[in-house]
Amino acid sequence: MNSNVPFRGIIAYPITPFTTTNEADLPTYRHLVERLVTSGSHGIAPLGSTGVLPYLTDEERDAITEATLQQVAGRLPVLVGVSHLTTAGVVRHARFAERAGAAAVMVIPMSYWKLTDDEIFQHYDRIASAVSVPIMAYNNPATGGLDMSPALLKRLLEIPNVTMIKESSGDVQRMQALRQLLGEDVAFYNGSNPLALAAFAAGATGWCTAAPNLIPELNVGLYEAVQRQDLSEARQIFYQQFELLQFMVAKGLPRAIKAGLELLGQEAGELRAPLHPLTEDEQRELRRILDRVPLPASVG
Amino acid sequence: MNSNVPFRGIIAYPITPFTTTNEADLPTYRHLVERLVTSGSHGIAPLGSTGVLPYLTDEERDAITEATLQQVAGRLPVLVGVSHLTTAGVVRHARFAERAGAAAVMVIPMSYWKLTDDEIFQHYDRIASAVSVPIMAYNNPATGGLDMSPALLKRLLEIPNVTMIKESSGDVQRMQALRQLLGEDVAFYNGSNPLALAAFAAGATGWCTAAPNLIPELNVGLYEAVQRQDLSEARQIFYQQFELLQFMVAKGLPRAIKAGLELLGQEAGELRAPLHPLTEDEQRELRRILDRVPLPASVG
Amino acid sequence: MNSNVPFRGIIAYPITPFTTTNEADLPTYRHLVERLVTSGSHGIAPLGSTGVLPYLTDEERDAITEATLQQVAGRLPVLVGVSHLTTAGVVRHARFAERAGAAAVMVIPMSYWKLTDDEIFQHYDRIASAVSVPIMAYNNPATGGLDMSPALLKRLLEIPNVTMIKESSGDVQRMQALRQLLGEDVAFYNGSNPLALAAFAAGATGWCTAAPNLIPELNVGLYEAVQRQDLSEARQIFYQQFELLQFMVAKGLPRAIKAGLELLGQEAGELRAPLHPLTEDEQRELRRILDRVPLPASVG
Amino acid sequence: MNSNVPFRGIIAYPITPFTTTNEADLPTYRHLVERLVTSGSHGIAPLGSTGVLPYLTDEERDAITEATLQQVAGRLPVLVGVSHLTTAGVVRHARFAERAGAAAVMVIPMSYWKLTDDEIFQHYDRIASAVSVPIMAYNNPATGGLDMSPALLKRLLEIPNVTMIKESSGDVQRMQALRQLLGEDVAFYNGSNPLALAAFAAGATGWCTAAPNLIPELNVGLYEAVQRQDLSEARQIFYQQFELLQFMVAKGLPRAIKAGLELLGQEAGELRAPLHPLTEDEQRELRRILDRVPLPASVG
Repeated sequence: MNSNVPFRGIIAYPITPFTTTNEADLPTYRHLVERLVTSGSHGIAPLGSTGVLPYLTDEERDAITEATLQQVAGRLPVLVGVSHLTTAGVVRHARFAERAGAAAVMVIPMSYWKLTDDEIFQHYDRIASAVSVPIMAYNNPATGGLDMSPALLKRLLEIPNVTMIKESSGDVQRMQALRQLLGEDVAFYNGSNPLALAAFAAGATGWCTAAPNLIPELNVGLYEAVQRQDLSEARQIFYQQFELLQFMVAKGLPRAIKAGLELLGQEAGELRAPLHPLTEDEQRELRRILDRVPLPASVG
Repeated sequence: MNSNVPFRGIIAYPITPFTTTNEADLPTYRHLVERLVTSGSHGIAPLGSTGVLPYLTDEERDAITEATLQQVAGRLPVLVGVSHLTTAGVVRHARFAERAGAAAVMVIPMSYWKLTDDEIFQHYDRIASAVSVPIMAYNNPATGGLDMSPALLKRLLEIPNVTMIKESSGDVQRMQALRQLLGEDVAFYNGSNPLALAAFAAGATGWCTAAPNLIPELNVGLYEAVQRQDLSEARQIFYQQFELLQFMVAKGLPRAIKAGLELLGQEAGELRAPLHPLTEDEQRELRRILDRVPLPASVG
Repeated sequence: MNSNVPFRGIIAYPITPFTTTNEADLPTYRHLVERLVTSGSHGIAPLGSTGVLPYLTDEERDAITEATLQQVAGRLPVLVGVSHLTTAGVVRHARFAERAGAAAVMVIPMSYWKLTDDEIFQHYDRIASAVSVPIMAYNNPATGGLDMSPALLKRLLEIPNVTMIKESSGDVQRMQALRQLLGEDVAFYNGSNPLALAAFAAGATGWCTAAPNLIPELNVGLYEAVQRQDLSEARQIFYQQFELLQFMVAKGLPRAIKAGLELLGQEAGELRAPLHPLTEDEQRELRRILDRVPLPASVG
Repeated sequence: MNSNVPFRGIIAYPITPFTTTNEADLPTYRHLVERLVTSGSHGIAPLGSTGVLPYLTDEERDAITEATLQQVAGRLPVLVGVSHLTTAGVVRHARFAERAGAAAVMVIPMSYWKLTDDEIFQHYDRIASAVSVPIMAYNNPATGGLDMSPALLKRLLEIPNVTMIKESSGDVQRMQALRQLLGEDVAFYNGSNPLALAAFAAGATGWCTAAPNLIPELNVGLYEAVQRQDLSEARQIFYQQFELLQFMVAKGLPRAIKAGLELLGQEAGELRAPLHPLTEDEQRELRRILDRVPLPASVG
């Protein structure tokens, strides 16, 4: 594996569980990370949207970063989310992640005020100057509030240690345009769960997903079928998980994963307000969906 | 081939050429149809958006329908577009197409006033009662002005001779949802050119496209690679044509196909106003794109 | 009144009623027009969206045009909708309207294929060359499928007999931008019913509306309060009708007006399929809304 | 003035200036607040979007809150922005603002994960239980990432100390719907600058705006013309400022206000990265716009 592009395949996102007194629950978190490490996934990504990064204090983020690296202990590469509304804030967290042993860091340009393309470029450029680890630029207009065009993403890849792109705009044409613009060696990752098959067909290097918390065999199985270039098998495995992927996105990843873990008999801690658990109707729907998924006996 | 679902593979859409006095140019039209029949495509679809159906009088539509059936002469199945703003208008054109020998008819619920789901259902139901040929229901919010949900499309498929769905909403998740709802035997067709690979990966039965006017080998090649379940080959052939597919959509199919035909040395007639030819800059861009496409020597 | 800008105030749109055998019902139509003429409105506009123009044959359109001019008989200026998908079609209908005595014609650039700004400009330019009556350019992205920017509308106003603009994009900022670009003498008309107050506040010359079929006193009352610069009175009269205006837009003007006329005891004929009457629940909701409107005893 | 609804008229938003070492510049900030207090505005609102609230640490927010209350010194009511991604974070800042002497606090439900209506309601309910000052609920889908419907806002107003609504969705129909649902006594405030005239016409109690940093006489003049129910004068004053209002929104309030203050000869400090100053072209455009505004000699 190229050290500038240390991720491929299934990159698994843990949730961040909280105690009943609204503190980060590190023992439960480490148990959930351990499940992901042994699930067959190819990388671990703490402090993503799934991990409710924006709801955490700086100190909580540091603690989660350290807990992840200690638990993973070099068995898989770790991609730490270091986004922050200010440039100075990203630099601070990226340096911490680098020192802690992250293989790479992920940065979404969180907005509030819309940023110009030049502002976004300078944001990444300053971050890239401050660390040596590779950076994954992450486009997700729905949560970040900014939409980076393929042309801007191409420009970001000219910064030496910006080497990977995660696309979650939900439009497979955007990934195709990236590959068209950048050639077949570009490392792009899909972050839109219901597009997993389309993205791999389009040439994605990996799939960034919280689904391995619930159905790791199906996620890994899809990737392996694609590696074998077996379209028929890939399609079949994809449709086995599509309904669950849709549900997760519709309900929000932290809420859906927490509920799914509990249905599988796992501790998942509390959510942090304003997030609330799935309603009982939503939990019943999730149970019906999980019951239809062909889960191997060994799961959980 | 099932007579209720008489289409698969590449369904090719001819443009409608006009004379300098703004009349339908039937000799040129028949030549263009002949090129499509001998191009390797698997079906011919006159009077689609590509054929500027909404710009034609009833009499012109009849003449195009007859010219197509005569020229094709049974060599391939013909799918005639019979959409009209009124229900009575669709019935009239559907009956004409059936008598002329169409294998099926295609109906998009053209709007102006937004229609309710019940209005759309009754529209299809009345049309279906008036003819015996199978009907392809066509969803294209961008041109038709109405967006039919997967749930409504499922309901339409309960009408006995509504047997096929063409999806052009530009979102591959919609096709995946159809297959999820309707099972793997549902016959859905992709009408969004840049999604050709993603749609076949998702299980599309066919691809409705004007591209065979310009690059039939690549269109058919993609389908054949998918039939062999060879994802790697399919991806490679797809990226060879992706830039052209994007251009066609961005410029509008009639304008782009006319210009492309002329660049390939073919007669393509005039456009009907308000449509105007591509600008010179756009034509130069198209030439550059076509020059990069790996065209076999025999094209044209 | 300037003959180049022959409309101000309330411009009333009749529906087109049909017989039970799906033909235009001219006697009922003339009765409905007569009600509008005597309602206090300042102009009559046949063959708009309200009059289901796109659902009519050329001959039906001619008959409606003639019936309107004969019934109005010079008592009010008449604005005839002459839109058509092709440029030649608009020219044909504009010439007919001019000969029949229209004070002006209205043209929305109906699309299907998106038109470029140059195509739209040439469309209007050719129409303007073919007639002498003034032309109202009509922007309504929701029904026409094209969105003309303030900059393009400014360009259209450079064509000598394009003298009026009707804005129905639903965004009052668009009207404000027109006035900013074009100065306070620009004649712009609001076609978005729930924006009636905001548009008059922004300086609109008139309001194009189907509401006078049901509540002419309130429509005219709003205009008169604005003419007196009495903001408080204008606001009060506006809120008396706002709920009905919202309902009309939500249900579609032909369906809502037909139902409202019947609730007021008027003949309104049939709708043409695919349009269907309001459901019984919708009719009950409309009755409740009409019951809350302060209607004078003389209405109907 | 009702102590539950302590705001009306022009509520002015200061920017937060930074030093060259990226710290909050409190002396410059207090000078900018003093200008607003003496400008004729009717309220002061620190820590809004204009004040880049999301880019500040908790300690910086506390310091800005205290500096504002000290500088205003009871001359005008102060509305403190206390939004935070977590419910606990809002409670902390709301309590601080209450102790510091705020007349009310403003809360936008910042998202990241979309919140359900129930989650939003409980978020406000918990905050309202924690303080006694009145709360302004703020809807701004573009910056907050969530769109609260009129029906949800109505529900929030059932919480005893949620007494005011600020609407910045950019659609005047939303404000009209609020008044329709809630009656003419509802206190709603417009936060969309280019809708200032339309919102006052619709009955808004006040206008939340950063514009008094640059053109306080025009902002106050518009409000006073509306109070006199003089629509003609209101319209004239509105169009004098409309171009500047559009520019401010297009470029982002902190960037535009900082540049405008400097063009007026005022200290405005630095922006915090990732925000960058207007480009030179943008600054020239702003100068041209300001030169066209009829500024009294006494400004600055």
